[in-house]
Amino acid sequence: MSDDTYERGRERFLEVHDEKALATVEGLGDLGRAIVEFAYGDVYSRHGLTLRDREIAAVAALVATGRSSQIPQHLRASLKAGLTPDELREIILQTATIAGFPPAMNAMSTLKTVLAGRGEDR
Amino acid sequence: MSDDTYERGRERFLEVHDEKALATVEGLGDLGRAIVEFAYGDVYSRHGLTLRDREIAAVAALVATGRSSQIPQHLRASLKAGLTPDELREIILQTATIAGFPPAMNAMSTLKTVLAGRGEDR
Amino acid sequence: MSDDTYERGRERFLEVHDEKALATVEGLGDLGRAIVEFAYGDVYSRHGLTLRDREIAAVAALVATGRSSQIPQHLRASLKAGLTPDELREIILQTATIAGFPPAMNAMSTLKTVLAGRGEDR
Amino acid sequence: MSDDTYERGRERFLEVHDEKALATVEGLGDLGRAIVEFAYGDVYSRHGLTLRDREIAAVAALVATGRSSQIPQHLRASLKAGLTPDELREIILQTATIAGFPPAMNAMSTLKTVLAGRGEDR
Amino acid sequence: MSDDTYERGRERFLEVHDEKALATVEGLGDLGRAIVEFAYGDVYSRHGLTLRDREIAAVAALVATGRSSQIPQHLRASLKAGLTPDELREIILQTATIAGFPPAMNAMSTLKTVLAGRGEDR
Amino acid sequence: MSDDTYERGRERFLEVHDEKALATVEGLGDLGRAIVEFAYGDVYSRHGLTLRDREIAAVAALVATGRSSQIPQHLRASLKAGLTPDELREIILQTATIAGFPPAMNAMSTLKTVLAGRGEDR
Repeated sequence: MSDDTYERGRERFLEVHDEKALATVEGLGDLGRAIVEFAYGDVYSRHGLTLRDREIAAVAALVATGRSSQIPQHLRASLKAGLTPDELREIILQTATIAGFPPAMNAMSTLKTVLAGRGEDR
Repeated sequence: MSDDTYERGRERFLEVHDEKALATVEGLGDLGRAIVEFAYGDVYSRHGLTLRDREIAAVAALVATGRSSQIPQHLRASLKAGLTPDELREIILQTATIAGFPPAMNAMSTLKTVLAGRGEDR
Repeated sequence: MSDDTYERGRERFLEVHDEKALATVEGLGDLGRAIVEFAYGDVYSRHGLTLRDREIAAVAALVATGRSSQIPQHLRASLKAGLTPDELREIILQTATIAGFPPAMNAMSTLKTVLAGRGEDR
Repeated sequence: MSDDTYERGRERFLEVHDEKALATVEGLGDLGRAIVEFAYGDVYSRHGLTLRDREIAAVAALVATGRSSQIPQHLRASLKAGLTPDELREIILQTATIAGFPPAMNAMSTLKTVLAGRGEDR
Repeated sequence: MSDDTYERGRERFLEVHDEKALATVEGLGDLGRAIVEFAYGDVYSRHGLTLRDREIAAVAALVATGRSSQIPQHLRASLKAGLTPDELREIILQTATIAGFPPAMNAMSTLKTVLAGRGEDR
Repeated sequence: MSDDTYERGRERFLEVHDEKALATVEGLGDLGRAIVEFAYGDVYSRHGLTLRDREIAAVAALVATGRSSQIPQHLRASLKAGLTPDELREIILQTATIAGFPPAMNAMSTLKTVLAGRGEDR
């Protein structure tokens, strides 16, 4: 892929997440590069779905597959994209019907921690 | 749970899906009753998230966990809730970054079949 | 492993399942041999848990992980081990709370088919 | 759902688990309410399967799907429901044949920790 | 991404799989394009791992996650990359220890079908 | 199974992993015995696939299913079996196309930790 894709991905990544998250991803070598280029320079840069909608899908998919390491990052990205804490609670509850209560319980605890870290309990 | 919850769930289910899907679910005995009451009379009847947003979450969670039997039903529900075929394609592509290409490939094929069944190729 | 383990596994397999299922497994070469020896000659031949309890665990684990190809076999084994159709319905409903409704819906449909194949609707 | 369902769920939850676990679940907001009402006021309050049998299914499903956060709670519930440490070891070993050794290894370590916390090594 | 990446991906895809598989992927719209560009024009085109080694990883990952739709394609790609039927049997058996017997049973049946389709029973 | 299988498994386990890992597995009671006998005395002792190839499959399957507790052990075993850090990076990147970026991100971080523990950053 071209340098352009990487640059576009880097900018998009910073809009969705933040500098600290980017540093983590860029610390993963060629996997980090692939994430920046493909996930952010390509998929997340596409038109046709708002960032808010993309984050609904990302949170639901991460909760359903139990990928606990990436959930805090995408809960923060969801809040940045305009989803409210209450909407995130609904998404997690909705996911419980599809993937069971255990992953939803974990995600709800994580959301509490994320919100507390922002000094915002609801 | 009360008969009221079941009635509310039944109505909500019909708004989200259709009579044929309800007949299938009601053919599952007490599991079907639990789905109507809890998933539709409770979760899907809650305020705080639009039906369109719920379906984004449902499709992403079903694709990510590879639950192929329920994907066609929720792709149809998504279209009924106002998601366009192009938005569904974006949701599936987005899910590929989180759960890999194989479940996204299957979901994209299923979407083609669902759209063809509606006489609508895009 | 020794021939004794294989022989014990073969006998145990036939108690749990039947000749037809054994033929399928034995058609899988060394994987089939490993299943007969390890899963049936070792694990399923152990004392300390009744066959009925083992089948509760097997059905719950298969439903939760969505392993649809093996579910019919273990539903039949469960009935043979003394679980009633109503108990199997409860196990499937219970699993829905842990792994979500979609895999439980599939398992409940499969149970209906298995029972119909035995000319026994409940 | 009605207040009755919640009350029944709360009582059932305390029979299965304990006050501390209930406090955690009730700290999860509407998801906690849904768990108390649907999982405990409805599913776990149903007749037709003993609590001991329900816990066999719960442990097998949690181990198979690798839901490590909920495994300690249900191992304790299993012991409370009358399953012995040796029976739990058999259930975990049985699950290894269906979901592989890695999740079984984690569950067996967790069981050791749970038993040690009870001052009971076997 | 650039046209170059797509062209390189297309060529690499044809080396790994065949024309028929490419037509299927290209029929998936932008998801198909992403697969050709990212998975084949980028990842599969990288040096540092032989195609044979990549296919060992691909088959093990697909079997472990139970992605049955993509297993036949990668079993055929594995044979094309120089893995023998016996080596594929070992990989599937090895995966059984990590992900359980059920997905390995399905994969072993699929391998039999793939080999039979090539008029090659071993 | 016979004592011979256990002895062979124990020796093979020590070739693949080390004394410390064996102590952990042997601390798991009959599950540990089953792992030593079946996974190492049987599967890992088979001819027809090199240890290096087995570890490619093991790492890919563990990453794809997100079994984080066992990944460090098999990354170390992979290095011992002759896979280079760069080859392991390729295997993890390859797995991202099949199981998504999140489990690959976790595995890549784990690899960094494993390599740092060996005083070897690349």
